[in-house]
Amino acid sequence: MIGRKLVERLSGQGKGAELTLHDVVPFESTHKAIVSDLSTPGEAERLVAARPGLIFHLAAVVSGEAEADFDKGYRVNLDGTRRLFEAIRKENATEGGAYRPRVVFTSSIAVFGAPFPEAIDDEFLNAPLTSYGTQKAIGELLLSDYSRRGFFDGIGIRLPTICVRPGKPNKAASGFFSGIIREPLAGMEAVLPVSESVRHWFASPRAAVGFLVHAAQLDTAKLGTRRNLSMPGVCATVGDEIEALRRVAGDQAAKLIRRAPDPIIERIVSGWPQNFDASRALAHGFRADSSFEDIIRIHLQDELQKSAPPPTARA
Amino acid sequence: MIGRKLVERLSGQGKGAELTLHDVVPFESTHKAIVSDLSTPGEAERLVAARPGLIFHLAAVVSGEAEADFDKGYRVNLDGTRRLFEAIRKENATEGGAYRPRVVFTSSIAVFGAPFPEAIDDEFLNAPLTSYGTQKAIGELLLSDYSRRGFFDGIGIRLPTICVRPGKPNKAASGFFSGIIREPLAGMEAVLPVSESVRHWFASPRAAVGFLVHAAQLDTAKLGTRRNLSMPGVCATVGDEIEALRRVAGDQAAKLIRRAPDPIIERIVSGWPQNFDASRALAHGFRADSSFEDIIRIHLQDELQKSAPPPTARA
Repeated sequence: MIGRKLVERLSGQGKGAELTLHDVVPFESTHKAIVSDLSTPGEAERLVAARPGLIFHLAAVVSGEAEADFDKGYRVNLDGTRRLFEAIRKENATEGGAYRPRVVFTSSIAVFGAPFPEAIDDEFLNAPLTSYGTQKAIGELLLSDYSRRGFFDGIGIRLPTICVRPGKPNKAASGFFSGIIREPLAGMEAVLPVSESVRHWFASPRAAVGFLVHAAQLDTAKLGTRRNLSMPGVCATVGDEIEALRRVAGDQAAKLIRRAPDPIIERIVSGWPQNFDASRALAHGFRADSSFEDIIRIHLQDELQKSAPPPTARA
Repeated sequence: MIGRKLVERLSGQGKGAELTLHDVVPFESTHKAIVSDLSTPGEAERLVAARPGLIFHLAAVVSGEAEADFDKGYRVNLDGTRRLFEAIRKENATEGGAYRPRVVFTSSIAVFGAPFPEAIDDEFLNAPLTSYGTQKAIGELLLSDYSRRGFFDGIGIRLPTICVRPGKPNKAASGFFSGIIREPLAGMEAVLPVSESVRHWFASPRAAVGFLVHAAQLDTAKLGTRRNLSMPGVCATVGDEIEALRRVAGDQAAKLIRRAPDPIIERIVSGWPQNFDASRALAHGFRADSSFEDIIRIHLQDELQKSAPPPTARA
């Protein structure tokens, strides 16, 4: 989903002709498209053979699926990432170090695990409580080491939970954060499995694409040796989400949220981070949404093309 | 080296008969001994087939070699560790989860990279500046995830730099920390490639073996989800080392240290941690040497059998 929106953004900037897209499942595109499993030997080499100067690595088995299928999560999220990095290293060696592409890796705030400080900064320990978070944290470590050795010029960005995620729910345990906004805006009932006091860290799909585009252009020399950054976001409780929905779409929308507490999801979510100190990413020019209301308005504009006031410009 | 001393300690406790030892290079032992490459498919399964209840995983390509040979470092330190963990997971699954051994993994303070706080605690980011440190940090993440999933009961201990390391110098860039004590005590010249102000974190081989034995017996339930701990140590500058040597062995020993600044080693060492807040490990019962002088006396007692006053008991 983020990949599709990134392609739209890059195409809009006149960079569509130079794009090669890759996914494990078949997809429609007007761009050069390759469908393969990156964790299969040889596939990463095939992708890197054309020596792209900029590589976005977004691929992942999502958190719920990586937890349910241990082997698949490690194979795709860890081995797939490592094979990609290794393929770049081989091209780099073939070219005597002259081929050194920018690699933008989407990590996740799932690299962090409770207990947390009041706000998590970029010096806080990666102690994930899911296999998905473990795989992302390992990806970050590999990215740093391969960059330090000069095999590529990497940057890892830890995306907040993307909200409002368009389309159908996926297997992520975080699905309800989007569902309680998306479904009511479409006139449908949504299930809320956790209490309203649950607090979390959000970015709109539009902000996430902005992070990726900015990461592709950033002067990585200014990052020093620490090439992974937590992205800025909006800190909001589920109660804040519902209040924002009420302000944007009225009481009748908020009434479509049905409480159905689920102890399993409550337990998973209780181990997730709630709030960040993203001052490092802000200092490097990454920009968040300005409020949860704006996150909802962006969803209306980008997905439902409904008239809504434009998002407030950030001061 | 630590492995050999651990075997001596366990044998002294009457546990020798139950030991199986493994190394990649041939070695002499009165115990059951297996020589193989853990990173070769099938070898880890062979080792775990007998279902040992306690596994010490000490193996590693050292820092200097892992930096010089990228492929070997990742193959042995990352793939070897992962194959061992996977082999245990398979036995665990075969037994319906009933086989769940204690795994003691020796990590390293090389998982940390500059810039540092005044003292590094167990919540500080793992941002290694070497491939060796990266491989150890990944091992820690895997250990935590495999333990969380119930495949084994793991604990990772980050050893301080071991000093005084007996025998010949190895390829570790940290070799001089031991060399400037070991060689003068044997009446030989030692080369000091860095300035006396370089500060670092040390444990004697005897203390390191104590950490391993304690980790094997610890109630891991009390650790919570964070199963990796920085071990307590002695914080000392190179100047402190030389002063301790002078106090223990006299001026004639200290005069055998020849200054030969090496900018490459200076640069590597400048990225290493210097001081720790090991209060978490102390709270869990791990005990350090009490001073650098005692570290020297332990070397005299354990390696040279020279008469030396016994180490001061820790208050």
